[in-house]
Amino acid sequence: MTIGNSDTNHYSYPLPFCVVMNTITKQVLRVERLATGGYGDVKTDVTVSHIKDGHPLPKRPTEHQGPAEYVSEMLEMPLRTDFKPLDVIQPQGASFTVTDNSLVEWQKWRFRISFTPRECAVLHDIHYDNRSVIHRLSFSELTVPYCDPRPPHHRKQAFDFGDASASRAANNLSLGCDCLGAIKYLDATLVSADGEPCVSKNVICIHEQDDGILWKHTNLITERAVVVRDRKLIIQFILTLGNYEYIFAYHLDLAGGIYLEARPTGIMSPVAIDAGKTSPYGTVVGPGVLAQNHQHIFAVRIDAAVDGHANTVTVEESLPMPMEPTRNPYGNGYRVESTTIKNSTYVDAAPMRNRIIKISNPSKKNPVSGRPVAYKFSPPATQLLLADPASDIARRAKYAQHHVWVTRHADYEYWAGGEFTNMSREEEGGCFDAAARQDSVENGDVVVWAVFGFTHSPRVEDWPVMPAERFTLHLRPVDFFNSNPALDVPSKKNMASVLVDECCSASAAAGPVQ
Amino acid sequence: MTIGNSDTNHYSYPLPFCVVMNTITKQVLRVERLATGGYGDVKTDVTVSHIKDGHPLPKRPTEHQGPAEYVSEMLEMPLRTDFKPLDVIQPQGASFTVTDNSLVEWQKWRFRISFTPRECAVLHDIHYDNRSVIHRLSFSELTVPYCDPRPPHHRKQAFDFGDASASRAANNLSLGCDCLGAIKYLDATLVSADGEPCVSKNVICIHEQDDGILWKHTNLITERAVVVRDRKLIIQFILTLGNYEYIFAYHLDLAGGIYLEARPTGIMSPVAIDAGKTSPYGTVVGPGVLAQNHQHIFAVRIDAAVDGHANTVTVEESLPMPMEPTRNPYGNGYRVESTTIKNSTYVDAAPMRNRIIKISNPSKKNPVSGRPVAYKFSPPATQLLLADPASDIARRAKYAQHHVWVTRHADYEYWAGGEFTNMSREEEGGCFDAAARQDSVENGDVVVWAVFGFTHSPRVEDWPVMPAERFTLHLRPVDFFNSNPALDVPSKKNMASVLVDECCSASAAAGPVQ
Repeated sequence: MTIGNSDTNHYSYPLPFCVVMNTITKQVLRVERLATGGYGDVKTDVTVSHIKDGHPLPKRPTEHQGPAEYVSEMLEMPLRTDFKPLDVIQPQGASFTVTDNSLVEWQKWRFRISFTPRECAVLHDIHYDNRSVIHRLSFSELTVPYCDPRPPHHRKQAFDFGDASASRAANNLSLGCDCLGAIKYLDATLVSADGEPCVSKNVICIHEQDDGILWKHTNLITERAVVVRDRKLIIQFILTLGNYEYIFAYHLDLAGGIYLEARPTGIMSPVAIDAGKTSPYGTVVGPGVLAQNHQHIFAVRIDAAVDGHANTVTVEESLPMPMEPTRNPYGNGYRVESTTIKNSTYVDAAPMRNRIIKISNPSKKNPVSGRPVAYKFSPPATQLLLADPASDIARRAKYAQHHVWVTRHADYEYWAGGEFTNMSREEEGGCFDAAARQDSVENGDVVVWAVFGFTHSPRVEDWPVMPAERFTLHLRPVDFFNSNPALDVPSKKNMASVLVDECCSASAAAGPVQ
Repeated sequence: MTIGNSDTNHYSYPLPFCVVMNTITKQVLRVERLATGGYGDVKTDVTVSHIKDGHPLPKRPTEHQGPAEYVSEMLEMPLRTDFKPLDVIQPQGASFTVTDNSLVEWQKWRFRISFTPRECAVLHDIHYDNRSVIHRLSFSELTVPYCDPRPPHHRKQAFDFGDASASRAANNLSLGCDCLGAIKYLDATLVSADGEPCVSKNVICIHEQDDGILWKHTNLITERAVVVRDRKLIIQFILTLGNYEYIFAYHLDLAGGIYLEARPTGIMSPVAIDAGKTSPYGTVVGPGVLAQNHQHIFAVRIDAAVDGHANTVTVEESLPMPMEPTRNPYGNGYRVESTTIKNSTYVDAAPMRNRIIKISNPSKKNPVSGRPVAYKFSPPATQLLLADPASDIARRAKYAQHHVWVTRHADYEYWAGGEFTNMSREEEGGCFDAAARQDSVENGDVVVWAVFGFTHSPRVEDWPVMPAERFTLHLRPVDFFNSNPALDVPSKKNMASVLVDECCSASAAAGPVQ
């Protein structure tokens, strides 16, 4: 039953007006009528006109709308009954340790975790086998601008880390809900509304996950197959920002890889639309409910320390070579070109050139390849900010106009979109300004910012709650080690796996699945 | 000990010559000396010259090389002892059934599996909740060209499905090695070298995997959090193609998503290089061992049947709109543009335009959004073939020159690179020819081919055995359903998860991890 249940999804009844209030005097200044026609010139649709100007609201503005529930007891369909349990059991416990609520050791990784008011979980001094990789790794900003040009929708643009400090939105996680296996939770001390310290329980969870085959080879002569499974250590936090949720995680693997993952889920921010109408600015996802097209653009901050603090960033590309008799007589040849970044700047993704960003330590050479030890990543080729560069939205999020920023470390320069994003007119002190300093970054204390995200054209399937989308940045060693660093992971047969018996398994006995 | 162990890695001793033999008469025609200088003009390095022409081989051509083992008893380092077991337990068995060794039912999915000589596992008649999605889904081809222009290296180009038929390379999988949990294996009947039928055991494995949070929302008013976990059904096969292995898998999820995954691992195909030298054509990964730069380019064939066989393909993009007073006064607006493909053709990835490929059924409209029911994918923006278009390599793999091909179904047209790839001079009857027919494809029986892969600049970390890289194509419903199709997945607390006890866990008792 929807009526009387406070967990009903109120987002399925978007109202066709919004109230503008002076938050100091508590005085209502005006009631703005929102455009509900779906389409039309900005000026011909009913938009900035106010109720007092003769555009009264319809008497029953939500009568063409209806429930769209996600909480089980209010669903109009039965829950699936054929979804059998899957448990993760770690009979000897977890393979990691956490000391002093901050020092994490797992396999050859060692790092500290902190929980900052604005960024939530931050990883510090990440080492592998006692060699430094990253000094400080964090999610720095996330902006979500909407494309509907009809005022006041043009103002919809969140800065989810900067506007209100992400830690206030961090979920208090609970056992058996957000991850499987042996879980370690960490609490954080935040500042309450009255300025007092308060403990927020279980804001970070740490656990291991199996990740399929790490490497395999079968010797065709002896037929001996050697298989090693991968495992990841996951450091996760989840934010609820009003309607949307974001699952953020750092993953470390057994072969020196580091992943930053962002998974949007939760409820889209919808607006009202008249019955029977559609709109070029979004998708009608329920009766009277328009989910506007929008973007989610994340920024990650990588304060690198690859085998020491003096690092250099190079851009490496694989490029065609023309067929010609001396160097490429058969036309199969191609070349790899490397360009060193000397001064702070930006770089865009270029997957058709196989562009990668390499952070190396020029004073430490790999003894096998002769090249500097390094970590690299392919900048995810995701669409950048679509708003007009002269718009408020674009000027407030200049970081979102390029995929990679390479800057020189400056104390307290943590925020891709600048320190003060709330009601900002222009990004100040963010990636753009840091790059504009033209600082020397060669063989220095370099910070690399990676920007990625997605342009979300809503699907009906994203309503009323959206299946998580997954976006990942993958940092991996390149000539940092002298061989595959996971050669020493034991190749053990898993004795707990079982055969699904064809004729008489529990699943077969239960009858056909559908 | 390496000596006397037949599982020693012979790839760490690449020889500086190759033998050219007439396979009919068994006569050795010549011995070609390979270039070992790393660099230089094709003609000044010792290359096509033969031993009989006065370029004798060094007496001990492998004396500067050495072992590079991956089998545990030959490693020069101890195995990790702090890697604790992680088991997947399904106390009520698997949630899927397999009938007649081919009909698979899992959650609301239903499809048939076959195992063909050339493609291995193929999925047929994929339905969700009794609605058709795909008629036939397969991995069609994989070409691996190498960039080293010095002959005879320019000939290195495998077609791993077409050259020798992939099924002959399919691993016989075994319990506890390649996946965790409750596993169902399928056998296949192949043709032996003498033409007799022979059964190859366990060439396909089917199992379920937990995949983290599928959706979550916390109601900030009531503080009630609802979390539903995702699970995937994985249909997997693994090929050993000499040195390399490829892990191929189809994944189905609980929200209507279909994934095709390719994970290269195994041993790179190296060549000899003189002691102390490096090369622009690859990476020195061990003493005297050069791993040449190369590409892996996969083709997937999607014989679509989205809610019926008459489908239309559209290309959808999100594009900027200039700021102007009538339609975009504040500059936040952007537009979504859709173009219908009328005749068979190719399309390239364009992530900066958020280009997606939508396969819809124009005669079936979603009642909520009013749009045709569809499935879509973002073509992975991976680098296409780098070889000169006039080269043998490029002419043999014309399919690898574009990301997406849209063709009209033709009987027996299964092969992206053409039917006969072995020693081919030019792709015939593949994607290029099918597209060139300019067949009408609107509202018809359409086949969509997706091409993706990677340009592999070897790392020292890829030696002697390479950590798997992961490449995924993700097909997802768009306005195919009337809401999130996974609303009815139960939100159950996992009772088998446990807390990692800070002070006295097994892991803490074992002492520091490193």
